Amino acid sequence: AILAAIAAVFADGPLKGRHVVVTSGPTHEPLDPVRYIANRSSGRQGHAIAGALAALGARVTLVSGPVAIAPPPGVAIVAVETAADMLAAVEAALPADAAVCAAAVADFRPAERVTGKIKKIPGQPPAPIVLALNPDILATLSHHAARPGLVVGFAAETSNVIANAQDKLARKGCDWVVANDVSGDVMGGTENTVHLVTASGVEDWPRLPKAEVAARLAARIADALAK
Amino acid sequence: AILAAIAAVFADGPLKGRHVVVTSGPTHEPLDPVRYIANRSSGRQGHAIAGALAALGARVTLVSGPVAIAPPPGVAIVAVETAADMLAAVEAALPADAAVCAAAVADFRPAERVTGKIKKIPGQPPAPIVLALNPDILATLSHHAARPGLVVGFAAETSNVIANAQDKLARKGCDWVVANDVSGDVMGGTENTVHLVTASGVEDWPRLPKAEVAARLAARIADALAK
Repeated sequence: AILAAIAAVFADGPLKGRHVVVTSGPTHEPLDPVRYIANRSSGRQGHAIAGALAALGARVTLVSGPVAIAPPPGVAIVAVETAADMLAAVEAALPADAAVCAAAVADFRPAERVTGKIKKIPGQPPAPIVLALNPDILATLSHHAARPGLVVGFAAETSNVIANAQDKLARKGCDWVVANDVSGDVMGGTENTVHLVTASGVEDWPRLPKAEVAARLAARIADALAK
Repeated sequence: AILAAIAAVFADGPLKGRHVVVTSGPTHEPLDPVRYIANRSSGRQGHAIAGALAALGARVTLVSGPVAIAPPPGVAIVAVETAADMLAAVEAALPADAAVCAAAVADFRPAERVTGKIKKIPGQPPAPIVLALNPDILATLSHHAARPGLVVGFAAETSNVIANAQDKLARKGCDWVVANDVSGDVMGGTENTVHLVTASGVEDWPRLPKAEVAARLAARIADALAK
C-alpha cells in the first residue's frame, strides 16, 4: 500500500490520473475441498502489463487468480480464486478508464461443489464431472453500464489464431484482442508472440519478452486514452 | 547436486547410508493443453519431511509435483506433473530403505486428453469430463518386488480421520499412515494436526508446525530402520 501510494504520487506519465483494471493469472474452480480445475497460466503477462501501466502513471487495480509470482510494485492487488470471484472483484473496481483482461479465466466450473472430499470406490473411477458455464468477464465488462472506455481481451489459441481472435472481438464486444499463439507452449514462459486485433485490422508483433509486450501494450493504451 | 553431495558427505546421523524416497506436492492431470485437474497441496509437509530425513543423514530422493516452494537443501529432486509420471519416478528411484508418500496424488485423471484447446460453444457447457483411475502409488510401492522396508502413507481426511486412515493402512498394505485432519483447511498452511496410525495403534500428535511434524516423523523412521 505504501509502495502503491508512492508510485501514484511520483509516477508522472501519460496515464497519470487514469484508472486501469487488469486481470491476471488462472482461476481455480473447486470440485471438492481438495480438488479443482485450473488453467495453465503463470500470470506473468498480466502482471507485467499491470506493472507497465503503473510505470506510465496509471492507478492500477490488479485482480489476480492464484499465482506464484509477486505483484509488480505500485499496483493495488485483489487476490481471487474462481471466475465468479474475479468478476465480482472487477465490477467492484469500476469505474475505470480501461480494462485489460489478461487472466486465463476458466470457461466452466464443476456444476456441483462437493462439501466433503469425494471418496474413491476401489477399482472404479468416480462419476463424470458435470460442468456449468462460468460468467464471461470480458463480455460482461464490454456491455457493462459502467463500461470502461477501452476494453482489451486476450485470446490464447492453439490454431487459427487471428480468425479466432477476430471472432472473439466481435462476439465479446470488446475493443481490442491481444491474440496469443500458445501452440508452442509459451504459457509460463518468458516470451510471447502476439497479434493486436482491433476493428481496424491486425498488427503482428515480433516474438518479445513478456515485459516488452507489456510495455508496448501500455503505450498503445496511453495513446488510445489520449485521443 | 553439489549441495546434495556435500550434505551426503557431511550429514552424519542415524540415517547415514540409508536411501529414502519422499513424494510431495500435488499432481496435475491435463484435460487439454491449457486445463488440468489439480489437488490443493503446497508441498510444504512433504518437502519438510525430505529435509528432515536429509538432516538425519539419509540420501533422499524427493519426487515432487508442481509446487511454488524451493526444494530443501541436500535432497535430490525429481520434478513430475502427473500421477503416472510420479509413479514412474518413484519406481526409478528404487531400491530404498523407506518411502514416505506425502504427495496429494490425484486419484483420477480425465480419461481423454484433448490435443487442441476445447472450444466453447456459446451458451453451453462442454460435455462432462469422464474420469479414469490413476495408478495407486502407495499400494503399488507396498506390494512392489523392490518394496522398501518401511512404507509410509498420508491420509488427508475431512471426516472420520482415524477410521479412514486405519482403513487405508489395511487397504494399501503400507506400514504407517500419517492421518491429517484437513477439515480446518490446513492445506497450504504452516501447521498440521496428525495422527500416526500403525498396526500397533494410533498416536495422536499435538498441533505442530510442519517442520516439527517432519522432524518427529524422520526420527521415528530412523528408530524403525535401526531395529
